[in-house]
Amino acid sequence: MRKIIQKDAAIFLPDGFYMDGINAGLKQNGALDLAFIYSDNVCDLASSFTTNKLAAAPIRHFKGKGSFQTNFLLINSKNANAMTGQRGIDDIDEILNSLEYENIINPIMSSTGVIGVRLPKDKIIQGIKQFDLTKKDPHNASAAILTTDKFAKRISYEVVLDDGKSFGIWAMAKGAGMINPAMATMLSFILTDADVDANTMQDILDDAVEDTFNAISVDGDTSTNDTVLMMSNKKSGNFDKEIFKQAVKQVMQYLALEIVRDGEGATKVVAYSVTSAKNKQEAQKAAKALSNSLLVKTAIFGEDPNWGRIASTIGASGITCKEELLSISFDDVCLLKKGELLFDDTYEQQAKDVMKKDYFTITCDLGISDASFTAYGCDLGHEYININADYRT
Amino acid sequence: MRKIIQKDAAIFLPDGFYMDGINAGLKQNGALDLAFIYSDNVCDLASSFTTNKLAAAPIRHFKGKGSFQTNFLLINSKNANAMTGQRGIDDIDEILNSLEYENIINPIMSSTGVIGVRLPKDKIIQGIKQFDLTKKDPHNASAAILTTDKFAKRISYEVVLDDGKSFGIWAMAKGAGMINPAMATMLSFILTDADVDANTMQDILDDAVEDTFNAISVDGDTSTNDTVLMMSNKKSGNFDKEIFKQAVKQVMQYLALEIVRDGEGATKVVAYSVTSAKNKQEAQKAAKALSNSLLVKTAIFGEDPNWGRIASTIGASGITCKEELLSISFDDVCLLKKGELLFDDTYEQQAKDVMKKDYFTITCDLGISDASFTAYGCDLGHEYININADYRT
Repeated sequence: MRKIIQKDAAIFLPDGFYMDGINAGLKQNGALDLAFIYSDNVCDLASSFTTNKLAAAPIRHFKGKGSFQTNFLLINSKNANAMTGQRGIDDIDEILNSLEYENIINPIMSSTGVIGVRLPKDKIIQGIKQFDLTKKDPHNASAAILTTDKFAKRISYEVVLDDGKSFGIWAMAKGAGMINPAMATMLSFILTDADVDANTMQDILDDAVEDTFNAISVDGDTSTNDTVLMMSNKKSGNFDKEIFKQAVKQVMQYLALEIVRDGEGATKVVAYSVTSAKNKQEAQKAAKALSNSLLVKTAIFGEDPNWGRIASTIGASGITCKEELLSISFDDVCLLKKGELLFDDTYEQQAKDVMKKDYFTITCDLGISDASFTAYGCDLGHEYININADYRT
Repeated sequence: MRKIIQKDAAIFLPDGFYMDGINAGLKQNGALDLAFIYSDNVCDLASSFTTNKLAAAPIRHFKGKGSFQTNFLLINSKNANAMTGQRGIDDIDEILNSLEYENIINPIMSSTGVIGVRLPKDKIIQGIKQFDLTKKDPHNASAAILTTDKFAKRISYEVVLDDGKSFGIWAMAKGAGMINPAMATMLSFILTDADVDANTMQDILDDAVEDTFNAISVDGDTSTNDTVLMMSNKKSGNFDKEIFKQAVKQVMQYLALEIVRDGEGATKVVAYSVTSAKNKQEAQKAAKALSNSLLVKTAIFGEDPNWGRIASTIGASGITCKEELLSISFDDVCLLKKGELLFDDTYEQQAKDVMKKDYFTITCDLGISDASFTAYGCDLGHEYININADYRT
């Protein structure tokens, strides 16, 4: 029997992968800020990057290499190495050239943090010397890539095939702010020892990203650094496309929701399910508009079932909709049914009770046709303002 | 010599216009909530309405009448009569049919406030009976149309022609929240006794709206009720198209900026000037993206010259831009010049000083071609959250 078994992601890694996180002095107070991922086998890669036209230096550096394999990834937080020009790319080369470990093939780098400041190159080069490539510490690695995140986001599966053979998948992500991924999210790294090649991984990644990382929003701002990177070292020798695809999608769905749950200042995660739309594009447009509307986000913060703002946002998104066909529900509590107000005190109190939960679904049935899309967002409260009014200090 | 003379808009009205505001019991504490505008001559009309697909009942009622003239406009605040279906339109007919004053021709109605609640019809019908059509009280009329606005927005000009003859223009607006007009803004009413016909007014309105009301944003949410209505009763007998057009554009520019200045929780107005763009559409797209970015708005609230977020927002907007051509200035203080960081402590302090002002300009020179657009936005602070977390109670 094929099955996907969840493992403790603070411990369980696919065979042949090593990682750790250290403090290189980029963050204050000794917090972890520099991580590596190393595989004792060279890996095939699949990737997805930001659509931001001013993509950061690490992304331009990566894309400049064309198609390649690697077994070493360096990741720093606190500094995004974005808007740093050719010098930002040269800094990456200088840092990676300083790696003196044996058996490192085509090392690459990934960064997240403040935009427009050159990397503290010397600190990073000094930090690299502290690495111990025999370490397997997912706990520290996933902590070192965080910025304003409140908690680490990681997940691990053992996938068992019909013949009892198995492979592993481990993944981590960071998010928190500047989250409105377009074709990719902030940073996410997915590792596997499955025997899967680059093209197959890329197809699976492209297919899964739309309904997972691309369906979430914290603040509607698409980062310069969004990156999803998938690495396979094939050490298990095992593979089954169908269950691998399912496991990867579960991994990405889990991490995407964890990013929203840890959205800057967020207290709630809301699934915006737009159904009976003319087509998937329109359903997606309306669902993402809802997840990005300030008026909807503040109503959710206030636990106010203000369906009028939801209706207005759908109308403003420009998609096909009609007042007399629109229904709006908070979980199972329907407040508007085909344009008819069911909004008496009883229903309002029931909807308010739904909104007290950490996670709930707002369903907008357009009554037009049969397409649907679910986007995920969070509320907007005072803490978001506190975090972002002066992020750099 | 032709000239445009600003008058006291709390007093000065074009000839033949009357107005007042009363409390009809829609707002608590006796605050004004119901206004009329009456002209003793029938008026030509020009109008611009929201692009929201779920336009409110007053807009659908107005559009259902086709081309017409009127001399009476009823305006209520506190309730938007939106998402109220055919009954919302029937309510308007019933209210307007109750008007028992003589000489009223084709009366129309305009509403602003909460979405999804039927108009308190009986209170409005009772309120109408208090109207005195001989009153000229711009102060009360412009107060009665406000919702979360902190102050009334009105302006008045006397336009003097070469031969010494003149006409007047008076206008008011309300804004504060759900402000991201698309082809029109919340509510604005422009009155004139110039001898101008409906077609000429409509051309002038369409031309002026793009760079004024459509260039502002408070929260990126496009309302169901956005309306600009222009009424000419022609009583002065005077007209000159060129100076009329100039005066109307000044009126609309003034009111648009007043709406931003009174944005919910706003402490600052920022002009986002995108220059040297590939074309006007791209300049507009980037400028509006800046005015709507949560990360930019919170940085402005924090008086943090975070040009990295500005660059990222331009990149995320999808327009043509290159890191090595981009320059960013806060008023005269340039922090980024053709991709080169000028961001030392001196410049940073100078930019911080600029951001302490109530009004300043952020200029983003793309270095691509010669098109430009200026959008106007405000900061996002705690007060916005306080106002919107539970608007209805």
